[in-house]
Amino acid sequence: MKTQVAIIGGGPAGLLLSQLLDLEGIESVVLERRSKDYVLGRIRAGVLEAGTVRVLTEAGVGDRLAREGLPHDGFEISWFDERLRLDLTGLTGKPVTVYGQTEVTRDLYAAREARGGAVIDEAEVKRIEGIDTDAPTVVYEKDGKEHRLDCRFVAGCDGFHGPARKAIPESHRRDFTRDYPFGWLGLLSRTPPAAHELIYATHEQGLALCSMRSEEVSRYYVQVPMTEKVEDWPAERFWEELKSRLPSDVAAGLQTEGEVLEMSIAPLRSFVTEPMRHGSLFLAGDAAHIVPPTGAKGLNLAVSDVHYLHRALTRFFNEGTSEGIDSYSGTALARVWKTERFSWWMTSMLHVFPEIDDFGRRMQKAEFDRLTGSETARRDLAENYVGLPF
Amino acid sequence: MKTQVAIIGGGPAGLLLSQLLDLEGIESVVLERRSKDYVLGRIRAGVLEAGTVRVLTEAGVGDRLAREGLPHDGFEISWFDERLRLDLTGLTGKPVTVYGQTEVTRDLYAAREARGGAVIDEAEVKRIEGIDTDAPTVVYEKDGKEHRLDCRFVAGCDGFHGPARKAIPESHRRDFTRDYPFGWLGLLSRTPPAAHELIYATHEQGLALCSMRSEEVSRYYVQVPMTEKVEDWPAERFWEELKSRLPSDVAAGLQTEGEVLEMSIAPLRSFVTEPMRHGSLFLAGDAAHIVPPTGAKGLNLAVSDVHYLHRALTRFFNEGTSEGIDSYSGTALARVWKTERFSWWMTSMLHVFPEIDDFGRRMQKAEFDRLTGSETARRDLAENYVGLPF
Repeated sequence: MKTQVAIIGGGPAGLLLSQLLDLEGIESVVLERRSKDYVLGRIRAGVLEAGTVRVLTEAGVGDRLAREGLPHDGFEISWFDERLRLDLTGLTGKPVTVYGQTEVTRDLYAAREARGGAVIDEAEVKRIEGIDTDAPTVVYEKDGKEHRLDCRFVAGCDGFHGPARKAIPESHRRDFTRDYPFGWLGLLSRTPPAAHELIYATHEQGLALCSMRSEEVSRYYVQVPMTEKVEDWPAERFWEELKSRLPSDVAAGLQTEGEVLEMSIAPLRSFVTEPMRHGSLFLAGDAAHIVPPTGAKGLNLAVSDVHYLHRALTRFFNEGTSEGIDSYSGTALARVWKTERFSWWMTSMLHVFPEIDDFGRRMQKAEFDRLTGSETARRDLAENYVGLPF
Repeated sequence: MKTQVAIIGGGPAGLLLSQLLDLEGIESVVLERRSKDYVLGRIRAGVLEAGTVRVLTEAGVGDRLAREGLPHDGFEISWFDERLRLDLTGLTGKPVTVYGQTEVTRDLYAAREARGGAVIDEAEVKRIEGIDTDAPTVVYEKDGKEHRLDCRFVAGCDGFHGPARKAIPESHRRDFTRDYPFGWLGLLSRTPPAAHELIYATHEQGLALCSMRSEEVSRYYVQVPMTEKVEDWPAERFWEELKSRLPSDVAAGLQTEGEVLEMSIAPLRSFVTEPMRHGSLFLAGDAAHIVPPTGAKGLNLAVSDVHYLHRALTRFFNEGTSEGIDSYSGTALARVWKTERFSWWMTSMLHVFPEIDDFGRRMQKAEFDRLTGSETARRDLAENYVGLPF
């Protein structure tokens, strides 16, 4: 089989790239290791920057998002019972949109199917050959048989654990990693959210976050040591811990009766690899970088990568210039590092670090007080939260 | 001897407090451990916030400052050869003023002498009695004899190592400390400054700072491990190290011929004690808090403390209300913690930390790039640099 762009990974990044390329008349094939049902069942964050909404709309998957997405004009940070609202729309002119990543993936899958896009699921990439040439090949296994996908370019949209990044020789890339000494224990529940907007609550026991997927489905998190196991957290224990960390009136109004749809523990990590291109292979999204979930940048950063990459590939195939692909890595990484900084800063401010000294804890409080006392500081946070321009 | 306010410490904080109280008709006596000549010879930083200039002017010591102080509308940060100017006046409407702390102390000493103020030098405080009562006594030794100074209040303006803070029982105070794993090696030189404005230069070998006391006297610093000794740094070695860390065109223009007036190594520390009042004893300036020199907040923070304290004491003596003295600690600490945060952040961004990982180093670069890319971020820095309101 032969295509112009072989896309490894059928999550939102790979599907979006395939869709955007298709709209420019560029052929691609998406290879996804898991089944379609598995991909559509994955629970992920769901706060979309205005720029993400714009790209999804340009990609033709903005209709349901426009109908069902919840525009959020702000969010809250609390420090025990002290509360601070970030008026995103007032400070930046832009809201964010709450719309689950699962829904984004579903819309993209539907769009690819409607246009007859090639998405091959349960296809496991075994190796990527010839990335130093103009004619690489992705070798994958499906139904017990090996297949070869010849192409001009390979786009690695296959997440942190996927094979694309590893196909770049270690001598040609540099990895930057920070593992945080805690994780997020999440609970998805069929209950109305605790509040209309998100609340990041800091407390001596650690962060709690009140989030949501829709007006009927809430998503809550509490910071836990990575030594915790989800089976030790029956829902009642989770609710009790959550309430103890929330401002008292939020805790008092919390609904805890609905069906628990999912619980899981996720580690927090910052990761970047440089460069994001090697020869005919490009990386986008989690394949190239991971952010901790604080501030909800993971999906948004994948979308800005894909936006840059589809423009670069479009210029290559349709305008005959390699300028775009040559500058892709630098352009994408500039935004990646700024967003990594923001996610690291939000994480550093709001979590309890087991090894922190008293001075460090007061620095966290001073960050909160700085936000409370300075519109400039709030605007800086808001500009990052709604998304840096791209 | 008896007075209304016994002031321990004859540095700028103690002298300024004495002067401001005098202008309100409140008596004080300043006790200084060192000789007047020693105090006037101490080399300290010299970047004054607009609020500091305002208070000094209100105190009647603004004339020479207005004539000889150098208004600085901005300063620079460099990252290797990348340079960024912070347009302080453009961003905040306020400049800072370069005027050596030595000069401030000299002006204050002259003002106290002109008004017949009691400043007793070479007076070593042995103990402070009765701070839990309305009639404390400061016991000090001068010329081999013990003296007693009875008063209504004691103001501890005696720096980090002075006796005032230690007079508060440990059970009644809480100390917060962060020691940084490096110091500043400083060189004072009779040469014109490298540039019209200050330059904070970051480099893989560590921070360098080009500062000045006047148009004829430069002050330069390089970050060094605290294991370094000043005797291992002949001036030639210092100049060479400094040049290697500066942007190349700054290094090329550096004048290194003038007389070296002083060299010394200072540790970097963040420190706060809470509360800043215990009974009849108040703390102000370095007695209560230390900031690392990055951002030049030490003297400015002492001045805002003294401003709050003189107002509180004036209300007590002249208006008969204890509201001011009761809120002093809280009011002063709110500004102290915000300024500690700024100094810690500037220090964290610009120095090389021996234990830092590659990700952390990139976060420092991302802070620099954030400033380059965002006017909001620059405004936030500028608002802190020119001084938070008081």
